[in-house]
Amino acid sequence: MTRRYSLIALATAVIAAVGTVSAIAQTAIGPLLYDSKGSVVAPANYRDWVFLSSGLDMSYSNPPPEGQHQFDNVFVDPAAFKGFQKTGQWPDKTVMVLEVRHAAQNVSINKAGYIQADIAGVQLHVKDNAKGGWAFYSVGANGQTSRFPDKSSCRACHESSGSVDGTFIQFYPTLIDAAKKAGTYKDGK
Amino acid sequence: MTRRYSLIALATAVIAAVGTVSAIAQTAIGPLLYDSKGSVVAPANYRDWVFLSSGLDMSYSNPPPEGQHQFDNVFVDPAAFKGFQKTGQWPDKTVMVLEVRHAAQNVSINKAGYIQADIAGVQLHVKDNAKGGWAFYSVGANGQTSRFPDKSSCRACHESSGSVDGTFIQFYPTLIDAAKKAGTYKDGK
Repeated sequence: MTRRYSLIALATAVIAAVGTVSAIAQTAIGPLLYDSKGSVVAPANYRDWVFLSSGLDMSYSNPPPEGQHQFDNVFVDPAAFKGFQKTGQWPDKTVMVLEVRHAAQNVSINKAGYIQADIAGVQLHVKDNAKGGWAFYSVGANGQTSRFPDKSSCRACHESSGSVDGTFIQFYPTLIDAAKKAGTYKDGK
Repeated sequence: MTRRYSLIALATAVIAAVGTVSAIAQTAIGPLLYDSKGSVVAPANYRDWVFLSSGLDMSYSNPPPEGQHQFDNVFVDPAAFKGFQKTGQWPDKTVMVLEVRHAAQNVSINKAGYIQADIAGVQLHVKDNAKGGWAFYSVGANGQTSRFPDKSSCRACHESSGSVDGTFIQFYPTLIDAAKKAGTYKDGK
């Protein structure tokens, strides 16, 4: 038995399938869009974006919370990725997606270890300077997004422990060098 | 201690960093290129391609071989991904990349589970009908590619157990539905 990504424990809604998000948000074109009510539109195409990394059963608490084994995949929109590679900083309007998937064992010919199965939850981390900077959003079963309170533990932890600008660059191996080269990297404690 | 992706155990060379591949293959533009000697050029930009999935400590043998904990990331060129989504089949010239990374524990504020660290090895799976169909290549420390023998255990296992056309679609959650819809999916035993 197991652990659960503590960030996910805060989510108020989970979605059952990628298809749900895709169906709702298929009008999204750019990386950061708001609907007529001012809510962030969940990106339909984030699996076409740049993959930053995966973790298994990551937890920032000790002992970790119990739960199913889970992978967390992080994607970022390509324009933001290119911007970070050049400057070591996230440009305004950056959209990052945390996709959590159940981990499965003993599937097909795989006799050991874990593979990725269905989606357990999706969250967004969005930088919009016109709206106060970074914010977290959960993506609900209907594809609607819900902004986390600005005093959430998500935000406090990201701000104190993220290597660059409240993001966990220390866990994204293809961006660490760019941040160190630009002098924006700090050790995340 | 641990397990090792059995496919990787066959590799004769590993690379120490993405940078090595990038430096050698930076002239690559399309997904499948050959150099003047007829060797496949390792794609420099595969981290910009479509991410298919990650596994941790996957093994097709029981008990699994010992070794360090490892993640395996699989990427495919975007044109091939779009082709598969439409038809449930891989088009000619498809290039898939298996990137193996060491798994690390107790990094920064992560107190449980595993994150992805440096690269342990890179292999290619290339479909080129003009050269007999699918072939596997290892990517060496100098960025050079080396074709696996056509009678390798890699090929035999992929052909017998891959869900679609000798590829492990059963481990790629964003492609399973496309294959089932197209009628190309078979259970991988």
